[in-house]
Amino acid sequence: MTTVGFIGLGIMGGPMAGHLVKAGFDVVGYNRTAAKAQPLVEAGGRGAPSIADAVRDADIVAIMVPDSPDVRAVLAGEDGVFAHAKPGTLVIDFSSIRPDVTTELAEQARAAGFRLLDAPVSGGEAGAKNAALSIMVGGAAEDFAAARPVFDAVGKTVVHVGPNGAGQTVKAANQLIVASNIQALAEAVTFLRAYGVDLESALEVLGGGLAGSAVLNQKKGNMLSGEFPPGFRIELHHKDMGIVNSAAREAGVVLPVGALVAQLMASALAVGDGGLDHSALLRGVERLSGREGT
Amino acid sequence: MTTVGFIGLGIMGGPMAGHLVKAGFDVVGYNRTAAKAQPLVEAGGRGAPSIADAVRDADIVAIMVPDSPDVRAVLAGEDGVFAHAKPGTLVIDFSSIRPDVTTELAEQARAAGFRLLDAPVSGGEAGAKNAALSIMVGGAAEDFAAARPVFDAVGKTVVHVGPNGAGQTVKAANQLIVASNIQALAEAVTFLRAYGVDLESALEVLGGGLAGSAVLNQKKGNMLSGEFPPGFRIELHHKDMGIVNSAAREAGVVLPVGALVAQLMASALAVGDGGLDHSALLRGVERLSGREGT
Amino acid sequence: MTTVGFIGLGIMGGPMAGHLVKAGFDVVGYNRTAAKAQPLVEAGGRGAPSIADAVRDADIVAIMVPDSPDVRAVLAGEDGVFAHAKPGTLVIDFSSIRPDVTTELAEQARAAGFRLLDAPVSGGEAGAKNAALSIMVGGAAEDFAAARPVFDAVGKTVVHVGPNGAGQTVKAANQLIVASNIQALAEAVTFLRAYGVDLESALEVLGGGLAGSAVLNQKKGNMLSGEFPPGFRIELHHKDMGIVNSAAREAGVVLPVGALVAQLMASALAVGDGGLDHSALLRGVERLSGREGT
Amino acid sequence: MTTVGFIGLGIMGGPMAGHLVKAGFDVVGYNRTAAKAQPLVEAGGRGAPSIADAVRDADIVAIMVPDSPDVRAVLAGEDGVFAHAKPGTLVIDFSSIRPDVTTELAEQARAAGFRLLDAPVSGGEAGAKNAALSIMVGGAAEDFAAARPVFDAVGKTVVHVGPNGAGQTVKAANQLIVASNIQALAEAVTFLRAYGVDLESALEVLGGGLAGSAVLNQKKGNMLSGEFPPGFRIELHHKDMGIVNSAAREAGVVLPVGALVAQLMASALAVGDGGLDHSALLRGVERLSGREGT
Repeated sequence: MTTVGFIGLGIMGGPMAGHLVKAGFDVVGYNRTAAKAQPLVEAGGRGAPSIADAVRDADIVAIMVPDSPDVRAVLAGEDGVFAHAKPGTLVIDFSSIRPDVTTELAEQARAAGFRLLDAPVSGGEAGAKNAALSIMVGGAAEDFAAARPVFDAVGKTVVHVGPNGAGQTVKAANQLIVASNIQALAEAVTFLRAYGVDLESALEVLGGGLAGSAVLNQKKGNMLSGEFPPGFRIELHHKDMGIVNSAAREAGVVLPVGALVAQLMASALAVGDGGLDHSALLRGVERLSGREGT
Repeated sequence: MTTVGFIGLGIMGGPMAGHLVKAGFDVVGYNRTAAKAQPLVEAGGRGAPSIADAVRDADIVAIMVPDSPDVRAVLAGEDGVFAHAKPGTLVIDFSSIRPDVTTELAEQARAAGFRLLDAPVSGGEAGAKNAALSIMVGGAAEDFAAARPVFDAVGKTVVHVGPNGAGQTVKAANQLIVASNIQALAEAVTFLRAYGVDLESALEVLGGGLAGSAVLNQKKGNMLSGEFPPGFRIELHHKDMGIVNSAAREAGVVLPVGALVAQLMASALAVGDGGLDHSALLRGVERLSGREGT
Repeated sequence: MTTVGFIGLGIMGGPMAGHLVKAGFDVVGYNRTAAKAQPLVEAGGRGAPSIADAVRDADIVAIMVPDSPDVRAVLAGEDGVFAHAKPGTLVIDFSSIRPDVTTELAEQARAAGFRLLDAPVSGGEAGAKNAALSIMVGGAAEDFAAARPVFDAVGKTVVHVGPNGAGQTVKAANQLIVASNIQALAEAVTFLRAYGVDLESALEVLGGGLAGSAVLNQKKGNMLSGEFPPGFRIELHHKDMGIVNSAAREAGVVLPVGALVAQLMASALAVGDGGLDHSALLRGVERLSGREGT
Repeated sequence: MTTVGFIGLGIMGGPMAGHLVKAGFDVVGYNRTAAKAQPLVEAGGRGAPSIADAVRDADIVAIMVPDSPDVRAVLAGEDGVFAHAKPGTLVIDFSSIRPDVTTELAEQARAAGFRLLDAPVSGGEAGAKNAALSIMVGGAAEDFAAARPVFDAVGKTVVHVGPNGAGQTVKAANQLIVASNIQALAEAVTFLRAYGVDLESALEVLGGGLAGSAVLNQKKGNMLSGEFPPGFRIELHHKDMGIVNSAAREAGVVLPVGALVAQLMASALAVGDGGLDHSALLRGVERLSGREGT
């Protein structure tokens, strides 16, 4: 039986750890707020009081934490994975972080005798709950093969996209496209409303043609109702727009729309919409157009 | 047997007229370049030497021409529909033109005793050939009902979105979304290439999640190959970006991304890419990033 | 004594007509609201009850009205200049209008036996009152020479920039630069305030270096006080941003910043700031940043 | 006689150190490339083989190096100022670096017993040569007073704008305004050329009104000639756009134009114009408009 140490049992990590239990893994979970390990225990997994305890006997370590500094602490901290896991352990980092940090951590992992995959996911809370995540994996081909049973237990579309860092790079591109598509839809919705067009009919016919998208399908409900429960929060997408724009800058890639959408996302955060779903970019277009709540 | 006078037998109108013949309509077609009526005749329709001859005995008149002035000339010109068709004739304008011009022409039509529907389509040449167009229809409900057999013969998703002008407004929104989604994809592709990510794998996993879209599905081939045969030409989408931005300005709707994408589309035209498919926006991102043809 | 028929005695035209009286011209003024001719009469000029009466005996006709349709009506209307002035009369249009309309009207003028100069001005109400306007003149060199005494009576920097239309083109460029420089300053001011920097000191040192500009000198008072009495109104600058962006589009010139600033100006109008000075673009940056009235 | 240790004798620092000698200071200069100390020695100053030697007996230390890591190394490195200067020494950092790094270094300085002023300059090579720099100073009022004789020897407009970091914040705002004003001018110039307007006349009249600016005055020569010798290089302004956009992001300030201009600056670098003067943003507008070298 394969033992998985799972660090980070939040909205995403919690359900993912549960799916691993169902798939037959022995899962030892750790979360800073210990109470969040309870559902895992109820599902048949085990809780651990520290990262050290969670990873000490693990064959595979899985990580799902918010940001680059968190991953760095989990891996390279005093109480972390490199200090306490067995040499040779396969580490799967599901977090969405800066590609350059991933690359640097992968080198540290190698130097410390570990194997690391960056494996950020797309699909949100629903994808995590339904084991239907898209997973974009960077790292060595043999490590990807070894991790395959874990990926299959939590994901639907699983693709090895290149060496370490490539997974994060694809995730960054994903967030760029998603934010831009939401913004475009928000501008279109505001335009249609200003002209008094029946929005539900309009979105139906738009969804059937070249304007159709997963964003239109999944976010049109929020746009019609004017309510934006998360979902994926503005404040997290703001972090991600920072990642993709910084990485593009490093590589000399010019993102005219990406940079502008990052500003509009920053505006949503600045005016207090950070806790809403990212489809709340609509509210920004309405504010610019003097049409709040129309 | 219902007689349809069909004005404009080009890349879109030609196949559409053919589908009407197959659906049992008596189709009398007119095109400025007479040779373009030949396929219609071979399919069992009839050619006419003038608009007057095409519409004189028609129960329904269908129009598919490039731009606002063309529609105006076809309808209100000396040799046009208002002058030569029977009073009460139902006119279906499939062209994509300015919403305000449509509204004005619909009033002229009413004053002259005609009924007009604006019914712009989405789906391109392939949609026209496969009778799979999305059709966004503006006009009176009873006229929409009367035109339904014609729409069903050429379209797949057919929606009555409101009064006259609403069809064009939705089409304008469609073009806004499509252009923005292409640009976002183009920025993502350039970003991924700069980081050496395997693009085909990356697009596969992106297409499976929230970044997925009809644009990604239908345009990824062009972006992978770097060839941009039309399809829908930059120069036509440039016209459409003018329509949506002008209409938004009229209505006091602010389109930050829409305005920027319109500039990038204008740039594509200015540098000589006007005859390429709109997915050639990728070439603009590459030029800005000093990465032409990578 | 040279007789000048002056059409349009508003905030700009009124003081300009007064300066012409002081310079020794016989000025016959017309304004739609007749009361506005009163200051001219008190200054020694004459009022006329119609355009026809104002221009019938004029050697020179001067026009200062708001927009393209107004100029067209004044010149080519039934009661207009072409119908009632003497053949050969020199017409100076001080209005800021579309370059293509100016060009077209200049051709009509020639055909009707008149000579036309487009002579839009910069410098605002203060410039008009102090006879310190910058005047950008398009038209024939000999007409420019003939109009010189009029220009010298109302302006400080007077330059013949090319044939008909060139004056309006330069004015359009002027409005593009001014709006962009205001927006840049507004972004800088919001940035400095967010960091708690003493704004008055900061603007002093910024004004002394490469960031210095007429906009910074003339608008910093409004930005410091947060009050934006016009001056030049947002709604007029919005009209002008439409002119320059349309003209750029026609010529295939790409204005990334110009297009974005036009959207921000449109936003200012949409939220109800149209009657404020254009330096109120600052309020838009503050709204985007959740810092209204800071 | 006050002794100044001057670190960094490049294009800016070299002439500044020379002016200090002329003003009666005893200047001990250090540069990584030792030969660059030669002009200082010829002017009456002294060269030092290390930072330690340059600062050991200094009353004041002045620094003028390219970027944040350089300043950090000069101050906090093993061979650096904190390790070798006398406690209580006043340190003036003329470099343009990240405000947050300045703030952090100022704290380190205080902890190590030093007094630090951030004093970035505007005015370029010409300003350095002519002792006509604008200096924006952050730090304690008594330190500003103590440094005044140094500032007066090299600057013309010298303003104390706030506590540590404020100087860098104002410099960041300066660079935002300058880049945006250049871009606006570049768009206007391309627009005017496309319409065949005589550019020299147009810039004359534009410079006399509200569109006038230091950028227009100082950069119009480059724009007219199409040659862009530095001056201030694109690659340095690109660094600065990174600073201002990052700092704005940190503070929740939205810079729509600033973010877009940063992309256009990044594009100039990406296509190989990094070594040209920042007024070469004009070349980017020309490329977008298909009008290179017109």
